[in-house]
Amino acid sequence: MTARTRPGLVLALDIGATKTLLRAAPAGPTGAAEFPADGVVRFPTERDPGALVARIGAEARALAAGGRIAAVGCAVPGPLDRASGVVGHSPNLGWHDVPLRALLETALDSPVVIDDDAAAGALGEWRSGAGRGADPFAYLTVSSGVGMGVVVGGRPVHGAHGTAGEVGHLVVDPSGPRCGCGRRGDVEAFVGGSSIARRARVAWPSRRPANGGPAPRDADGVFRAAGNGDSIARAIVAEAAEALGRAIAATAAVLDPERIAIGGAIGLGQPALVRRAVAIARRRCIAETGRSLVVVRAVLGEQSVLAGAAALGSALAAGPGRPSSR
Amino acid sequence: MTARTRPGLVLALDIGATKTLLRAAPAGPTGAAEFPADGVVRFPTERDPGALVARIGAEARALAAGGRIAAVGCAVPGPLDRASGVVGHSPNLGWHDVPLRALLETALDSPVVIDDDAAAGALGEWRSGAGRGADPFAYLTVSSGVGMGVVVGGRPVHGAHGTAGEVGHLVVDPSGPRCGCGRRGDVEAFVGGSSIARRARVAWPSRRPANGGPAPRDADGVFRAAGNGDSIARAIVAEAAEALGRAIAATAAVLDPERIAIGGAIGLGQPALVRRAVAIARRRCIAETGRSLVVVRAVLGEQSVLAGAAALGSALAAGPGRPSSR
Repeated sequence: MTARTRPGLVLALDIGATKTLLRAAPAGPTGAAEFPADGVVRFPTERDPGALVARIGAEARALAAGGRIAAVGCAVPGPLDRASGVVGHSPNLGWHDVPLRALLETALDSPVVIDDDAAAGALGEWRSGAGRGADPFAYLTVSSGVGMGVVVGGRPVHGAHGTAGEVGHLVVDPSGPRCGCGRRGDVEAFVGGSSIARRARVAWPSRRPANGGPAPRDADGVFRAAGNGDSIARAIVAEAAEALGRAIAATAAVLDPERIAIGGAIGLGQPALVRRAVAIARRRCIAETGRSLVVVRAVLGEQSVLAGAAALGSALAAGPGRPSSR
Repeated sequence: MTARTRPGLVLALDIGATKTLLRAAPAGPTGAAEFPADGVVRFPTERDPGALVARIGAEARALAAGGRIAAVGCAVPGPLDRASGVVGHSPNLGWHDVPLRALLETALDSPVVIDDDAAAGALGEWRSGAGRGADPFAYLTVSSGVGMGVVVGGRPVHGAHGTAGEVGHLVVDPSGPRCGCGRRGDVEAFVGGSSIARRARVAWPSRRPANGGPAPRDADGVFRAAGNGDSIARAIVAEAAEALGRAIAATAAVLDPERIAIGGAIGLGQPALVRRAVAIARRRCIAETGRSLVVVRAVLGEQSVLAGAAALGSALAAGPGRPSSR
């Protein structure tokens, strides 16, 4: 058989802060793969990059069952250098200067394209989810961190230095709480789950919240306490809504997207927070933009990023080389 | 002679709040015109659209000297509906629902493409000025108002509803001064020349500034008084720098432009203000973006917008139809 009739498998890989998702599909005649909705393999993300890549290699070989892996699309929390495939300082993974693409190419004996999770999520939702046909389109993910990917004219926009979409680190209050990135009072410091958890541990070092329940220890606990009327929790949630509203307003003012999709554990799990943020964003843009702003839920759930990774892997299998770094 | 060998003239038109600029160049074999740097006709912008269009028609016929006008590119202060060619409510022109494209097409007997001045300025600087080769590129104009045009992958981004780039109306302080757009405390309310002039008339209803000079009556006067140490003027300028910094930071966070060019009378005339704003923007973005931010002066001076209008007109003359509305 020729390579044309046996093009091998395309592997999609989403390396998250806590779990890694993997799926595979046979590449079609042009290389592009049609991924089934099921068949996702998941396992905890090992903190050690070598151990993680070894686990990925073992799972991929089991999935491939002796077949050839034609190409791999991999999403990872940024920032990263797309050209070299090196993950710089990723606070969510605890990595510093990990040559992820090279490690994966060696382990899987296959070409690999990597991109950050926000850009991959945007591409996934644009191709197969809430962003279909939208131009411009933005996908804003709010979970432990805050990231955003942008698609203009059907192409992901990474920016000149790979930091397009970093509205999570737009400072809204220079005297606000500290963010993992080092700045004070950026959007993520107010609405990111890790930051909300830090604020909870400061606000309730031991005392119980007003409703008599257990002191919140994480973002979910803060949202529950706010729902039960605790005034400190309500203040934290109000500041989170304001910050998220500012990120949406900045995106709307610069790009006037046809649609903004919100994903991530907090983005999907706290619809009341998102509604408040959208109302704030409408008041912070020119009236025309405020009126026409459309913010929807991402629809691919935990698979937004995996769908984008699949698209990147398919393009690599089909095309003459890696997609452009912009 | 066939149309191919006598393609006629391409007309470029910049209708500004106070003056209108016009130039013409013969279209080449493909329709695209090479505009000379000189040869710009200028006249005051009549407030009445009918009178303005009549004047434009007379000037254009004089320029054409009996030749055919093949296509017209026209820039105008927005907002406008690109598809219908109607200028909605343009505060800077005092117009409401003026069917500008239809008026010009009748007067000039030629197809016309219109775009807003910020988008045209961005395209002009990207093709022939400070934005050459930059991807993404943003052109931020600060004069009586504040506008921005964005070019991604060499194509202007208008957004889904034509309001991409409206960072001038991003609210930075909801209790701030009133903007011409109706909102309070947006970027333009702090740094737009008309707003600064309004603030001056409130701050100095009669009294003389601290330096003993005349009370400022316009933005230039406020900048001069601040330079002379007047404390009220300095506070107004500090707020202007902060607001402009926020607009730059929002643009950098969303798009990570390779270059941002600043134009307009205030943008070009107040380099110290721009330097302060850039320093503020660097502190309000993620560190990587702050470090890599490049803000330069627009280089085409009053011809940024005219160069963009020329590009639009050339494309209309060369192509099968009007450029896409996005």
